[in-house]
Amino acid sequence: MTAGHRLGPPLDGPAPELVESGFHLENADAPLLHAGLNLADLAHVLDLRGRGVIPVEPARRLLALLLETHGTAPEDFPYDPAYGEPYNSRERFFTEQIGDDAGWLHAGRPRREAVRIALRLHLRGQITELVDRAAQLADTLALSAAEHSRSWLPDQTYLQHAQPSTYGHYLLSFAYPVLRDTRRLVDALAWTNTSPGGAGCVNGSRLLDDRRPVASMLGFDGVIEHTRDAMWQTDGLVDVLAAAASLVGTQSKLAEDLEIWASSEFDYVTVADGFSRSSVLMPQKRNPYALSIIRGASGTLIGRLSGFLAVIKSPSARSDNLIYAYGEVPRALDLALRTTRLTDGVIRTLQVNTARMWSALENGFCQATDLAEYVMQTCDLDYRTAYQVVGVAVRKANAAGLRGIDIDGAMLDEAALEQAGRSVGLTGTDLTDVLDPRHIVETRTATGGAAPPVVEQMAQDCRDQAQQLRALAQGRREGFHAAERDLLSTARALAAGQGQEITA
Amino acid sequence: MTAGHRLGPPLDGPAPELVESGFHLENADAPLLHAGLNLADLAHVLDLRGRGVIPVEPARRLLALLLETHGTAPEDFPYDPAYGEPYNSRERFFTEQIGDDAGWLHAGRPRREAVRIALRLHLRGQITELVDRAAQLADTLALSAAEHSRSWLPDQTYLQHAQPSTYGHYLLSFAYPVLRDTRRLVDALAWTNTSPGGAGCVNGSRLLDDRRPVASMLGFDGVIEHTRDAMWQTDGLVDVLAAAASLVGTQSKLAEDLEIWASSEFDYVTVADGFSRSSVLMPQKRNPYALSIIRGASGTLIGRLSGFLAVIKSPSARSDNLIYAYGEVPRALDLALRTTRLTDGVIRTLQVNTARMWSALENGFCQATDLAEYVMQTCDLDYRTAYQVVGVAVRKANAAGLRGIDIDGAMLDEAALEQAGRSVGLTGTDLTDVLDPRHIVETRTATGGAAPPVVEQMAQDCRDQAQQLRALAQGRREGFHAAERDLLSTARALAAGQGQEITA
Amino acid sequence: MTAGHRLGPPLDGPAPELVESGFHLENADAPLLHAGLNLADLAHVLDLRGRGVIPVEPARRLLALLLETHGTAPEDFPYDPAYGEPYNSRERFFTEQIGDDAGWLHAGRPRREAVRIALRLHLRGQITELVDRAAQLADTLALSAAEHSRSWLPDQTYLQHAQPSTYGHYLLSFAYPVLRDTRRLVDALAWTNTSPGGAGCVNGSRLLDDRRPVASMLGFDGVIEHTRDAMWQTDGLVDVLAAAASLVGTQSKLAEDLEIWASSEFDYVTVADGFSRSSVLMPQKRNPYALSIIRGASGTLIGRLSGFLAVIKSPSARSDNLIYAYGEVPRALDLALRTTRLTDGVIRTLQVNTARMWSALENGFCQATDLAEYVMQTCDLDYRTAYQVVGVAVRKANAAGLRGIDIDGAMLDEAALEQAGRSVGLTGTDLTDVLDPRHIVETRTATGGAAPPVVEQMAQDCRDQAQQLRALAQGRREGFHAAERDLLSTARALAAGQGQEITA
Amino acid sequence: MTAGHRLGPPLDGPAPELVESGFHLENADAPLLHAGLNLADLAHVLDLRGRGVIPVEPARRLLALLLETHGTAPEDFPYDPAYGEPYNSRERFFTEQIGDDAGWLHAGRPRREAVRIALRLHLRGQITELVDRAAQLADTLALSAAEHSRSWLPDQTYLQHAQPSTYGHYLLSFAYPVLRDTRRLVDALAWTNTSPGGAGCVNGSRLLDDRRPVASMLGFDGVIEHTRDAMWQTDGLVDVLAAAASLVGTQSKLAEDLEIWASSEFDYVTVADGFSRSSVLMPQKRNPYALSIIRGASGTLIGRLSGFLAVIKSPSARSDNLIYAYGEVPRALDLALRTTRLTDGVIRTLQVNTARMWSALENGFCQATDLAEYVMQTCDLDYRTAYQVVGVAVRKANAAGLRGIDIDGAMLDEAALEQAGRSVGLTGTDLTDVLDPRHIVETRTATGGAAPPVVEQMAQDCRDQAQQLRALAQGRREGFHAAERDLLSTARALAAGQGQEITA
Repeated sequence: MTAGHRLGPPLDGPAPELVESGFHLENADAPLLHAGLNLADLAHVLDLRGRGVIPVEPARRLLALLLETHGTAPEDFPYDPAYGEPYNSRERFFTEQIGDDAGWLHAGRPRREAVRIALRLHLRGQITELVDRAAQLADTLALSAAEHSRSWLPDQTYLQHAQPSTYGHYLLSFAYPVLRDTRRLVDALAWTNTSPGGAGCVNGSRLLDDRRPVASMLGFDGVIEHTRDAMWQTDGLVDVLAAAASLVGTQSKLAEDLEIWASSEFDYVTVADGFSRSSVLMPQKRNPYALSIIRGASGTLIGRLSGFLAVIKSPSARSDNLIYAYGEVPRALDLALRTTRLTDGVIRTLQVNTARMWSALENGFCQATDLAEYVMQTCDLDYRTAYQVVGVAVRKANAAGLRGIDIDGAMLDEAALEQAGRSVGLTGTDLTDVLDPRHIVETRTATGGAAPPVVEQMAQDCRDQAQQLRALAQGRREGFHAAERDLLSTARALAAGQGQEITA
Repeated sequence: MTAGHRLGPPLDGPAPELVESGFHLENADAPLLHAGLNLADLAHVLDLRGRGVIPVEPARRLLALLLETHGTAPEDFPYDPAYGEPYNSRERFFTEQIGDDAGWLHAGRPRREAVRIALRLHLRGQITELVDRAAQLADTLALSAAEHSRSWLPDQTYLQHAQPSTYGHYLLSFAYPVLRDTRRLVDALAWTNTSPGGAGCVNGSRLLDDRRPVASMLGFDGVIEHTRDAMWQTDGLVDVLAAAASLVGTQSKLAEDLEIWASSEFDYVTVADGFSRSSVLMPQKRNPYALSIIRGASGTLIGRLSGFLAVIKSPSARSDNLIYAYGEVPRALDLALRTTRLTDGVIRTLQVNTARMWSALENGFCQATDLAEYVMQTCDLDYRTAYQVVGVAVRKANAAGLRGIDIDGAMLDEAALEQAGRSVGLTGTDLTDVLDPRHIVETRTATGGAAPPVVEQMAQDCRDQAQQLRALAQGRREGFHAAERDLLSTARALAAGQGQEITA
Repeated sequence: MTAGHRLGPPLDGPAPELVESGFHLENADAPLLHAGLNLADLAHVLDLRGRGVIPVEPARRLLALLLETHGTAPEDFPYDPAYGEPYNSRERFFTEQIGDDAGWLHAGRPRREAVRIALRLHLRGQITELVDRAAQLADTLALSAAEHSRSWLPDQTYLQHAQPSTYGHYLLSFAYPVLRDTRRLVDALAWTNTSPGGAGCVNGSRLLDDRRPVASMLGFDGVIEHTRDAMWQTDGLVDVLAAAASLVGTQSKLAEDLEIWASSEFDYVTVADGFSRSSVLMPQKRNPYALSIIRGASGTLIGRLSGFLAVIKSPSARSDNLIYAYGEVPRALDLALRTTRLTDGVIRTLQVNTARMWSALENGFCQATDLAEYVMQTCDLDYRTAYQVVGVAVRKANAAGLRGIDIDGAMLDEAALEQAGRSVGLTGTDLTDVLDPRHIVETRTATGGAAPPVVEQMAQDCRDQAQQLRALAQGRREGFHAAERDLLSTARALAAGQGQEITA
Repeated sequence: MTAGHRLGPPLDGPAPELVESGFHLENADAPLLHAGLNLADLAHVLDLRGRGVIPVEPARRLLALLLETHGTAPEDFPYDPAYGEPYNSRERFFTEQIGDDAGWLHAGRPRREAVRIALRLHLRGQITELVDRAAQLADTLALSAAEHSRSWLPDQTYLQHAQPSTYGHYLLSFAYPVLRDTRRLVDALAWTNTSPGGAGCVNGSRLLDDRRPVASMLGFDGVIEHTRDAMWQTDGLVDVLAAAASLVGTQSKLAEDLEIWASSEFDYVTVADGFSRSSVLMPQKRNPYALSIIRGASGTLIGRLSGFLAVIKSPSARSDNLIYAYGEVPRALDLALRTTRLTDGVIRTLQVNTARMWSALENGFCQATDLAEYVMQTCDLDYRTAYQVVGVAVRKANAAGLRGIDIDGAMLDEAALEQAGRSVGLTGTDLTDVLDPRHIVETRTATGGAAPPVVEQMAQDCRDQAQQLRALAQGRREGFHAAERDLLSTARALAAGQGQEITA
């Protein structure tokens, strides 16, 4: 420490450049943090009072003022970048209202503790809501899947017809990753709902020898043990952003598929009017606008995650790590929330053009694999050879304007002669079942296959899981509300001079 | 096209899920696009009127209404997600005001053309401003560099003392990349300030056989030739985001350096009060808060760029490509603008503790390279061997509590004996000049070196370039304002029935 | 500088953990840098010799050894992480071969200067090649566009039929952004091909008072002025990665479109056999595999850019900035190079199913906008009303199984009665031209429109630009080769004792 | 399906552009997948044989050939892009060796199933190893933390001295996030170690009615239920990349801190020789090179994650989703593995200069907060006022060249008089304990605080957790090896005609 090193609060006010950048940015997040800051302050005052750190009268005045502030909408509170970040505006307002009594609020706690708590209170609400909506989406997907367990569809890879399946089996393949990411969000919620309170600057506070009361009053599941970690941890924010990006990424895949299928060329599905938009120029247009919104949200969230990771690539205990998180993470989750509800609505109202799907399947060659397997099993050919034989037959049928279901044993014999040098004796054999795409689907009875009963059972399982997750979300939500109600009620009683004092 | 494929505008209104997602998102961008939409609409009406497409009376009413709208702040205009995206709100309001006459506005132009133009009008203002501020930053850096051409400093790699230099030479190394990125922004401005007008849906419009009048009225430098490209190009947005991310990245590097140098251990610099912030807990604290803000902005912009690239990873002619750009790109540039001005302020007001820098240099061993070169040149040793000899001398001097300038010929002879097996005959030689870090800096006279006159000349060159760029920005700004004034004045005259009609 | 601070080269060898991480990573890049390191070393020795810094005999031995090394493939050179990064392996090998004479190589130059030069020599070759291939792609696109100026196509937005166009006009919309990104690469090449040589550690070198000879010998366009900037600049790498990501992003959009159009439902195009792949399971499959590769390359390059931006978010003058660039940037450009050639091949060999495209256009309602404009212009209706009238007619026609070209005046009158409350007097009017999609395309004669002659002229312009860019690339390539040949020839002569000495 | 739509395997060989791009890229990953492909093929043949699909003799020949291949290093196997991706090279080689018998391998399984399995087998090994190394790092951090529970340190925010702490408390703050990310990796391992086997193309296979035998033979924990999900899921890859990026991000923060602390100005720590590197130019240099490597790895991994997210932003069931994952994800994990071991080595060997840390603490003002709290508690002042009083005293002491521990009661009284208008009666009070930073640290006894016994207890807890995680990794590793051994042994027996047949 050199003698010349400047210490202590700045003597001059903030430069305009700082007001217009840092303080402007932080104040833009005040609406997100306002409620949580009030709750954090209330709990802190109650905790200090419970330990006898604050005398009773200042505590009452502070609590009354904080309760009034909690009843004030953030846009009506004098947050103003000219005074610094939101905490500074609060401090200034509190001092204007009750003078030096406001000064007790800062005992044993840096500003960042209050804001960290406010962020977590905001995020736990958002994550709980996202668990709920994501589970709702899984439920919607599974419900529709069950309804369409017999809506025959040519499943595609590379957008080329691959094998016979159903729209139900197809759709259900999105419910599973949605459920997995929902469970990751439940884990992220556990990380979020822990208390950094009582960490002091970073090493703990002499004034607060028990960190549990604040945690408990705020409805946290517990205390983040190490105080420096408690102040600066960001890994859970990476986790929640990654889970949200993955969750919306799954929705983007589905939206891209549906956009293709909603073309007049495919016409497999029709997006409902409420999720479409007209052109102001082209009278015939009816655009599946909602699908664009879902896809763009996915790209945007990828950027939010990589941006946050770049922000936290810094030394430790640097404020930018979390200053930028205050707005970026809630806004990213807000986008994920709106998008997830949108996807749910799209699927719930989607018109599935089953006749078109069936027509595409009936007119194609999706049964080729099963046919090759049949040839392998009945004609003493290895699979590769059987595949080549069927390949020849398919090509010829296609060139002749025939469909897969039109292939017969004679054509296979001819192909085998050409490809393998010998007939395989299928002329005259009845291949109806082998070639019928519906029959093929019904053979897929192993775990997770496309057979309708298998799909229906999986759909039910998914719905059960979704319901459990929604119940979990509901339980957490109620717990948070109850804690908040209790905190406000304790504060009101104490402010009114009636309350039982909290003691550590 | 199958008979069943649904065509035409949706019959139902938008679903609440869509209002709360897509339409909510787009309306949040209305304040950014409002002015540009008005100008785009005015130019379009004037153009249609000039061709005789719109009859004179509807044209007057439309122009009057649009001029009134242009005088209305976006927050006072009835933008409302319930009616769709902002263009829909406008259409609805215009129809309420003047009935069917409003319907002429849509002739020959999709909504996206208006919004694309509005985006470009907004961006050209921002990019011009960013060119100006970035050039101002380069000027500030160069000015300070010139003032500190003799502020001796141990330059560092790996944060270890490397060679003698000056704060001026150090600081000037940031002016060059700032100027390069500024020139990239000038290129991006050229891309931005071209007109997509008259592209029709995508293939041109039958009604508009000359695309130049709209371009000219709006102050664009020209027309984007290919109409589909005109509607959908995004490469210039990638370019401007990359240049902005790189520009702020340079500032982040400087901010990280200064944060380290502002520590009490280094104490090389002191960030001015106006860019610092106190702690509310710790009375001794005085935090260089502005530096955190700069660094965090850099990370955030990395995410904005990667997010936008992910958004545009989609098929062609998909609306999400640009719907998300409407808000993301302007907000990213806004962050770059605020940050660049902040960095400028930090540098302009920074206190440079030259005594501390000199002390660090004087007490270290930064002259070791020059000493090894001297040994090589005077003692008939290859560089590697001379380096090893000096290495031994440095180690011993350091262990003995001596400084680099305390090394003498005898110590080198001793080291040479140990390392190379022979004395090098330097005992008694006067090494004062060889060892004096100031003298060493003065030998760096080749292009771009640290010698004070070289630094001063480079600083002047940078300032000249910065001035030219600022003048260019000023010229562009005035040109844009003039075009806008002329457009409004033409519209006012025509609305009032006095105007000379524009003819194509 | 405290007495205890450790100075001088490490006394112990590298830890295994370091060998397996940092040194392993850097050695993996040796094949990319080997040639450039040899050239950089040769030029440095010639420069030192030209100034008389190195005596003549050691210079000859060093040159001979470096020439031999230049003739050795990197995989045959003893690069080994156990000895450090590649420069260390070189130093070790050179000392083994010629003893202390090798020690002259290090005079006046840090290792990083050699590697920075090697990186730039490698990159300039890659960027030149990428300019060439990208211009080739633009040429291929334009050539095919010209051939298909009358291949009628329903252009799409949201993948819904929008307006009549041609495959030629569509395809050409990709040539423009490719050309723009190619020009950005030309700018990036100018940045790349400048010399950091002679920057010393960072502040210049006392030994090298003219930095131009090294630059000239290596074929650089000039010297990077500021020496600290010369050592550490990264902005040009961001620029080239952004241009490459944007360039491949354009290709990805095209690939996604083609994947959709190659489906059996669209069947607009057929990817050539050489760019397709079979399934080993499904005999009917023929997958447009090349399109997947292009799209995945786009995503990968987005990550390379954002990763590099995250790497350089660090303080200044930190080695990781460029250590990671040595491999990441060349590998990213290699991916861009391979992908760009692939896209070129796909387009060059693509089968365009013009009959299918026309059929889709003929059976749809793409003429609706032109019809509404016709109604507006002939029936004294504002556009919005005309649009609504046509909207009703389209809906009814579609429901009746009719096509757009089947709409007649009576249907419009009926729609107008229903929508606008009055007939518009079109019954009996001949609408053939108004409704014919081919005729509509031919009206798009304004700048950049879809009219065949306009497309053909634009295609020719694009081809001309592409040719100029290819010629530029060819010129640069030859210049680089000539400089290299001259350098090697000078070195050979001097090594053989015959050469004219270079003098500064 | 139009008659013209081309079906069946391509008739021509691959174009050179495809060989040099897609096939080149995929073959570059063959060494990563070779072992897993062999195991997947062996299990598939055993499963087919167990069901009687393959006759016994072809099965024996196939197994013998696959076992031989498993004994061949990948660089000795004829993988060659000219033949397609690696699976094609295998197919070609197998057919060359045993003719049509090789054709049975493809029954019931697309190529992608084999490669998906191979990827998971490779990843499970890497993730297990990363769990082990990350837990080892946590253990090393905790061990060193315990040793340094009384190594006094001024903890910093904004790199400004904040409060008295210890190096032990500081270091331990990194163990916690490392442990959390390690547990996330354990979750990711559970996702990874599930079997996609038996999914057929996407909808299940008729031939394989029980998917458990393959899963069991390969040591998977179970079967991924839904077959389409099984083939295409990517969420777990996002999860593992995010956890790895976060894990290395934590290491990067630590590395950045240490780089600063290793400067001569701080000199808090000295990086061991084995993790340092010399300069070839500057004899005095000793660079903490390892720290640069760690930081750069963090940035690189951010790019790998965002790149992968961009790749998978595509429609569903597109091959690029996973083709690019085959190389990108293993290489990203390899970088995380090498880096984590490197960080472990750096910390294990780091020299902690406790005297320097204490000196910095002793000479500064870190006790200011505790002093203000003391004033608040003893002098009947609110915290804000007490803070201001202490602020004045600190400023004055600093200006007078005094240290925090030199402040006395008289100075506080004087400050109170100036700031609050009254003395606070502290003149003559003994403030020794209040001001002693060591004493202050010892008061931080609440959960997670810096008091030495608290740190020691937390360190022990972390070590216990780390040991459990290492044991878990060891258990998984052994399980995987055992399954592999059993599979090979079964295959060998059957190939030799001695084996008990597997039955489904």
